[in-house]
Amino acid sequence: MRSESPVQSRCPFCPGNEDETPPEVHRLSKAGKENEWRLRVVPNKYPALGQWKINDRQEKPCDEQDLFFTALPGWGAHEVVIETPLHDSHIATRPVEEIRDLLDTYAARIVELSRDQHIKHVLPFKNHGATAGTSQDHPHSQIVAMTVLPAVVRAKLDFSRKHFSRHGSCLICDTIERESSMEERVVEMSDEFIAFCPFASRCPFEVFIAPRSHNHDFALTRDTESLALTLRSVLGRLQSLLGDPPFNLVVHSTPNLVSRSDVESQYHWHIEILPRLTHHAGFEWATGFYINTKPPEEAALALRGVTA
Amino acid sequence: MRSESPVQSRCPFCPGNEDETPPEVHRLSKAGKENEWRLRVVPNKYPALGQWKINDRQEKPCDEQDLFFTALPGWGAHEVVIETPLHDSHIATRPVEEIRDLLDTYAARIVELSRDQHIKHVLPFKNHGATAGTSQDHPHSQIVAMTVLPAVVRAKLDFSRKHFSRHGSCLICDTIERESSMEERVVEMSDEFIAFCPFASRCPFEVFIAPRSHNHDFALTRDTESLALTLRSVLGRLQSLLGDPPFNLVVHSTPNLVSRSDVESQYHWHIEILPRLTHHAGFEWATGFYINTKPPEEAALALRGVTA
Repeated sequence: MRSESPVQSRCPFCPGNEDETPPEVHRLSKAGKENEWRLRVVPNKYPALGQWKINDRQEKPCDEQDLFFTALPGWGAHEVVIETPLHDSHIATRPVEEIRDLLDTYAARIVELSRDQHIKHVLPFKNHGATAGTSQDHPHSQIVAMTVLPAVVRAKLDFSRKHFSRHGSCLICDTIERESSMEERVVEMSDEFIAFCPFASRCPFEVFIAPRSHNHDFALTRDTESLALTLRSVLGRLQSLLGDPPFNLVVHSTPNLVSRSDVESQYHWHIEILPRLTHHAGFEWATGFYINTKPPEEAALALRGVTA
Repeated sequence: MRSESPVQSRCPFCPGNEDETPPEVHRLSKAGKENEWRLRVVPNKYPALGQWKINDRQEKPCDEQDLFFTALPGWGAHEVVIETPLHDSHIATRPVEEIRDLLDTYAARIVELSRDQHIKHVLPFKNHGATAGTSQDHPHSQIVAMTVLPAVVRAKLDFSRKHFSRHGSCLICDTIERESSMEERVVEMSDEFIAFCPFASRCPFEVFIAPRSHNHDFALTRDTESLALTLRSVLGRLQSLLGDPPFNLVVHSTPNLVSRSDVESQYHWHIEILPRLTHHAGFEWATGFYINTKPPEEAALALRGVTA
């Protein structure tokens, strides 16, 4: 039995303090108790991007008439997913149906925010622990919708396209085939999903989760219960092995492109989990290369050896 | 007068403990006291890259016969610059001639390590403070020499080439001309060097230092005393304004290419200082974009307002 976390009177994400956040844009209510929420999505009170307002929008996308220092207005959306009413709930020990709620909410917000064709990409992510950049203890995720394609996503698309044009197949499908047959970097695998420590991991215990069948769009995932089981198990293994490590979790789904036919066959959605046990420093800044003292083969072996 | 820091008996970088480091590859001795060092360079005891040994070198650069997961042997050099015998000396308050020693040592190691044409890039950098990735308190820098061109350096070269082919001029020369005439992001400027908070800074109080006259190669810097003055002043301003912030300092000099004629006209060496006041988190990992709550114009204004 799980004990209820006490409500924190000063936490803006705890029940009773709903007035401290902007009005919610999405809510899941408790079964049979329509007035009580089990998950809320609200605009971030301190957004990195201003709310997109179709009428306020400038005709010219560039607000600085300078071709040397080009700037774009910071429009888009920045939302907070309050994952649970329980202040002390840890994602790795939460009931699997609550993790499914969270994944379904990521998908729902991707769909909703992608309706605006000015939005080029929607990114759900979660920072856990102060070292991983969290400013609020209450369990939450963030959703950022952007009017530009992020550099990392553009690079992933480019690699996927190059691989596809050379081999006629999806880069991540081919990676999964290799990883699942080699096994040494696999953390766990179900019929639908695989979790492995990627080749050339950027940090100790980096984990990559993806559907084993090709799917470019996270929001098209049918079996989110199976994904929730895999995700909870992986996070549980990290917790068992490493205590309560800070981590970043990011969902890389298809960009919101008008012409998606290429992307559909070439891109493959995936989740990256990056435990923040070490600091990236001058070397990483200056090179884009990552010094990792824990080879992924050893990390996967250790993670397979513990249970959630 | 500066008080001498006590020697730390357990610090491998303090005088008296020279046996705890591998034998030195470079040394500056105290004037008139040949037996006492004022700066040493030693191979890192825990190197990220193995020492390059010409006779041990494999014919084939790839040690894994796998075209999908390609890997290179981690050869190169990883050195530690022990900047001073004084355990508690802070770079921002050190005599300018000691900072000049450090810069001259960076240059000397770039020249020495670049003699081997298998080395494609030499990177001097300094991590200050635990959050910035330091594991030893004793003031030190690192030098890494690599057999591959780092991704970040490759990108900088590509941008420089594109700019040059479009405008017939060096990107950083043009940037410096713009910054010095606009003034709002300039921290300080001498006849030889400029320090400014770059447009679209990746973190609060990021500072970029470069020679005002075109020069692709840090090791060709003639007036290292002038550079030492600028660097010490900038670090002093950061310290005055922000306490003792953790930071990464990286020196981006020309790569070690066989044909350097293009690079000579297109590339421009520079130093980047990145105070680590905030954590980069899921958003930055997933996008390559940086949320920065301190615009460079405000950062530069604040830095101009304090003295070292």
